[in-house]
Amino acid sequence: MKILIINPNSSLEMTDLIQKSAENFVNGEYEVITLPTEGAPEFIDTYRDQALAAPGMLDIVKKYEEEVDAFIVACHCDPNLDLLKEVTCKPVVGIGESSMKMASMLGHKFSVISTAQHSVPNKQALIRKYHLEGCLASVRYPKEEIVGCSCNEEQIYLETSKDAIKEDMAEVIVLGCAGLSGLDKKIQEEVNLPVLDPILCALIIASGLVKASYTTSKIRRYALSY
Amino acid sequence: MKILIINPNSSLEMTDLIQKSAENFVNGEYEVITLPTEGAPEFIDTYRDQALAAPGMLDIVKKYEEEVDAFIVACHCDPNLDLLKEVTCKPVVGIGESSMKMASMLGHKFSVISTAQHSVPNKQALIRKYHLEGCLASVRYPKEEIVGCSCNEEQIYLETSKDAIKEDMAEVIVLGCAGLSGLDKKIQEEVNLPVLDPILCALIIASGLVKASYTTSKIRRYALSY
Amino acid sequence: MKILIINPNSSLEMTDLIQKSAENFVNGEYEVITLPTEGAPEFIDTYRDQALAAPGMLDIVKKYEEEVDAFIVACHCDPNLDLLKEVTCKPVVGIGESSMKMASMLGHKFSVISTAQHSVPNKQALIRKYHLEGCLASVRYPKEEIVGCSCNEEQIYLETSKDAIKEDMAEVIVLGCAGLSGLDKKIQEEVNLPVLDPILCALIIASGLVKASYTTSKIRRYALSY
Amino acid sequence: MKILIINPNSSLEMTDLIQKSAENFVNGEYEVITLPTEGAPEFIDTYRDQALAAPGMLDIVKKYEEEVDAFIVACHCDPNLDLLKEVTCKPVVGIGESSMKMASMLGHKFSVISTAQHSVPNKQALIRKYHLEGCLASVRYPKEEIVGCSCNEEQIYLETSKDAIKEDMAEVIVLGCAGLSGLDKKIQEEVNLPVLDPILCALIIASGLVKASYTTSKIRRYALSY
Amino acid sequence: MKILIINPNSSLEMTDLIQKSAENFVNGEYEVITLPTEGAPEFIDTYRDQALAAPGMLDIVKKYEEEVDAFIVACHCDPNLDLLKEVTCKPVVGIGESSMKMASMLGHKFSVISTAQHSVPNKQALIRKYHLEGCLASVRYPKEEIVGCSCNEEQIYLETSKDAIKEDMAEVIVLGCAGLSGLDKKIQEEVNLPVLDPILCALIIASGLVKASYTTSKIRRYALSY
Amino acid sequence: MKILIINPNSSLEMTDLIQKSAENFVNGEYEVITLPTEGAPEFIDTYRDQALAAPGMLDIVKKYEEEVDAFIVACHCDPNLDLLKEVTCKPVVGIGESSMKMASMLGHKFSVISTAQHSVPNKQALIRKYHLEGCLASVRYPKEEIVGCSCNEEQIYLETSKDAIKEDMAEVIVLGCAGLSGLDKKIQEEVNLPVLDPILCALIIASGLVKASYTTSKIRRYALSY
Repeated sequence: MKILIINPNSSLEMTDLIQKSAENFVNGEYEVITLPTEGAPEFIDTYRDQALAAPGMLDIVKKYEEEVDAFIVACHCDPNLDLLKEVTCKPVVGIGESSMKMASMLGHKFSVISTAQHSVPNKQALIRKYHLEGCLASVRYPKEEIVGCSCNEEQIYLETSKDAIKEDMAEVIVLGCAGLSGLDKKIQEEVNLPVLDPILCALIIASGLVKASYTTSKIRRYALSY
Repeated sequence: MKILIINPNSSLEMTDLIQKSAENFVNGEYEVITLPTEGAPEFIDTYRDQALAAPGMLDIVKKYEEEVDAFIVACHCDPNLDLLKEVTCKPVVGIGESSMKMASMLGHKFSVISTAQHSVPNKQALIRKYHLEGCLASVRYPKEEIVGCSCNEEQIYLETSKDAIKEDMAEVIVLGCAGLSGLDKKIQEEVNLPVLDPILCALIIASGLVKASYTTSKIRRYALSY
Repeated sequence: MKILIINPNSSLEMTDLIQKSAENFVNGEYEVITLPTEGAPEFIDTYRDQALAAPGMLDIVKKYEEEVDAFIVACHCDPNLDLLKEVTCKPVVGIGESSMKMASMLGHKFSVISTAQHSVPNKQALIRKYHLEGCLASVRYPKEEIVGCSCNEEQIYLETSKDAIKEDMAEVIVLGCAGLSGLDKKIQEEVNLPVLDPILCALIIASGLVKASYTTSKIRRYALSY
Repeated sequence: MKILIINPNSSLEMTDLIQKSAENFVNGEYEVITLPTEGAPEFIDTYRDQALAAPGMLDIVKKYEEEVDAFIVACHCDPNLDLLKEVTCKPVVGIGESSMKMASMLGHKFSVISTAQHSVPNKQALIRKYHLEGCLASVRYPKEEIVGCSCNEEQIYLETSKDAIKEDMAEVIVLGCAGLSGLDKKIQEEVNLPVLDPILCALIIASGLVKASYTTSKIRRYALSY
Repeated sequence: MKILIINPNSSLEMTDLIQKSAENFVNGEYEVITLPTEGAPEFIDTYRDQALAAPGMLDIVKKYEEEVDAFIVACHCDPNLDLLKEVTCKPVVGIGESSMKMASMLGHKFSVISTAQHSVPNKQALIRKYHLEGCLASVRYPKEEIVGCSCNEEQIYLETSKDAIKEDMAEVIVLGCAGLSGLDKKIQEEVNLPVLDPILCALIIASGLVKASYTTSKIRRYALSY
Repeated sequence: MKILIINPNSSLEMTDLIQKSAENFVNGEYEVITLPTEGAPEFIDTYRDQALAAPGMLDIVKKYEEEVDAFIVACHCDPNLDLLKEVTCKPVVGIGESSMKMASMLGHKFSVISTAQHSVPNKQALIRKYHLEGCLASVRYPKEEIVGCSCNEEQIYLETSKDAIKEDMAEVIVLGCAGLSGLDKKIQEEVNLPVLDPILCALIIASGLVKASYTTSKIRRYALSY
């Protein structure tokens, strides 16, 4: 089995980080490759960024479709996920969708830890799209006073997670950015409740779908288009 | 005042039809221009069609932004509407969003008359996005036996509207495709309840926003991106 | 075209204010008249106020129905709106319904700025009636400390709007009282995001419906009653 | 204890029917009086009927407020219920609200049996107002072929109930009109599942509130108005 | 008429408290008996507590089914309520369900006053099960600083109620534990809005169902099982 | 890794069927054991069946907790799932929850194929509990005419699936009973869209959670109870 992780941005650093997390998790059980998206911006933040990433993402799918067993879209806002589910018969898993649906199985309500206030409404719109409003404790981003201090990344997101747990009564934390991959275990140890790395969640679902021979329904909403 | 209607597909025939409907309605009160989208397919049906239309739609906005007062996206699935609301400070109105929200003011529940069964789930997803599930009687498409007969377009959509009114208890009809523009008055006369042409609805909202100096909020979800 | 704005209360001062806002906006394009409601209280606040306004509002509709093209109900709690939609074949537009549905097209979530805490649950019930709960950031009213200070009306509602934007993440502001008409542009300049005057929103919808020959569906919920 | 049942219409026949049902149920345990509403139409069907009933209903409340312990509004569309909850400190119970909320305790989903198709959307709007959409199997009215036959009233509503049970999977039946009072036991015997007479449900709640000294909260939404 | 109140825990003290509240309310009108549940824990808090109470509760129903007219489950988390509704043809009323549905008739939104933070998510899940999310102001529990002080129980829950009224805009208070039975009137006097004792609410519904000959629908969801 | 599948009923035949499906899927990658539940009925259908299964299920968890890495509850109504999530720190996965949440990732709406009409409302209540109402096309059970014919099991559920796809517009099929395990591939071949075997879905999630070191949040709703 071979799973291709599409990093929808063009950052090689982020691509490496994702690949490393994936390899650590997969541990040689199956093959996993992460590719950056040509022509995409360095970071996916806006609707424009998502649109700019679409052609490159389509190219990757076309080029590797025969060779791989499943695709993962590795940005937590699931850019162009409907599009990719439509254009290929292979399973396509978004790290946003899979991580938040898995979170809903592990506790009463989950919080998504996001990188900036700007992305909160977009994340809320995504959560509504997935019918998960009732499972959401909050979308949280680091408070200005924490970002401003000399904390490292781990401390920043640990504090933000603690706030979500205490003030919003979150029972599960979802790291809301592929760039936070790898922080899950460190924060989990501190807060003592599940902290989900969305890359891992997507790998669980994608590899499972391949093993079970399940893929996107091609009958109507995602009927194949050429 | 000048309003630019973006026809997200490349069909000149459809562009003409839209322009004619718009001119008839506007009646010289303000200027209205309809442009087809270069590089887009002849008809917008799938998520891929929407993605292919994005670059051309962005080009139109960039080129005409200074010159016009508002944009209309003239395909009832509102392709790339979030994107366009984000990239310009001028008002952007989708014919899907504006027609269905206006319909919700005119009766208990509305039905959208769509061209094919294939588009029903996509339309349902759009309706959920706009928080309109509770106002929806049904998404209807012509039954096979009607399409197969020698009926003309008007008869086909009249029959479909009648079914929605009787079987689904629709109180308002929304024509769910820019290509049906112009049929509204003929069907309205027959069924004797409001039948909305989405082009007209979008023109009402767009020209109103311009007159009132209201436009998309640029603070978070649609903050300007370059 | 002639549009009659029904001010559901009996205050001549409020009637003048509404008429002035309307005239400024309409700018001679069509005729607009505002009438106070005989027998109604000076201000519409309670369910009893709404009931007391009903006979006078019905009288206005009966008297002017032939003469005018559309009616507007100019109190943000939309008193007797269902009733008026039912008794006339002419379009009837509530400033509450039209302003909040237009707000939902301009940003992620809107806040309604209300005059007093007392009206919050009534406004929430109205918002639920219009299926807009998911688009609502908050219903806000001036904090006691602001009201108590020597601020003028503009400052009071500017501060309240800023709170909604910062604390509730509102992206659009709706002025939730006809009596606030005229403050929209001043606050909009300060907060730099859309601040809707509901009188203007209702005029946009009402004049648009007249131009497009759309009116309330008379088939079931609003079937004509004599 | 004395409970006053307000029949919101002016029909003496209906008033008698309601009084008879109430007396049968109460069985002398406490006093119950039913009054017709002066100035109201013979039957409450439209929003206009509801508005016309308001002054007479307010008069009854004012006149009897000191003398009685609770009021019941005995029309299944709960006309002016918010108004009456507001104007008096005594408990006010709608037969629509109380019967449907009691129904939701007795089975998975309930159907409301209504008298005519015309009232379906109004009933649906009421059900939404009470947050009961998720408990609703259907709003049913007698099919034309049943009404047209020589069936008596009991047979008509028995057939309609059977359809709701079989086709809509209703588990509880709510008689959706005060005029159907008294049919509950006969239909219940046939269909062998709970068939609720809304007059009885309202009496249960109203007398219970009086005994427990609970009444409408007067803090905000229903704060007393004079 | 004889109503059996099942106290799902084994505490004799709690059983006495419930019986006293019930007798005070019923005032000799009908017979009421409260029984503790053999084999159940001293207090029902967790899902495990609920499971441990099930056999004893089933035994009570089996033993007394012929003798009594209705059952009440007297723990506000309604443990095993679906089960009991299923196994007997006699009415079964949960104090959680009946108190919260009655609360929804008395004001805009209600708050449930709970004993500990731990139970908040479980209560929220129950509220969702009953389709009451839209009627809920909050689930509140005593703040640590109040619990820590030398306040008596009445003061603790009075303060908590006041917080719910002021901060969450609750209009009705529901005492969310059978152990709080008897505090309703004292708190109600202070806060001046309805404070519901769930034991009383359940007695109102249960005795009413018996009088009206209504019981659980046995057709599908609660079809009798042996 | 060792995963224990709890068959909540006492049928050895069903236990064998589940074990076989699991082994086929797992293919030696990790250890999987299926155990029947002592003291439970032969088939779990009613709330009483679920209650009777609880003690035996708790015994299994207590006995094997140290030895295994995760538990699966292998009945599609997820009996006692909340209870088991609470009493152990090891991951617990319900085949109902996991299969329906995975289905929601593979198409617009899914249908659950159930064995009998009786279970429809219980399944609907479960679907609401998981916030999946908006993803549901229908809960379907074999029509009487199909069951009555001489069809084999595969044909019966194939026909039922086809009805769901055509009449309810299902895009994904979920086999709603552990006893249907093994039929998925045969039906999938015929209908040409994903047909999920819930045993496989639960194994995907459970094994994934173990690999990623994620388990139920023990902070509030599922805090450990002894």
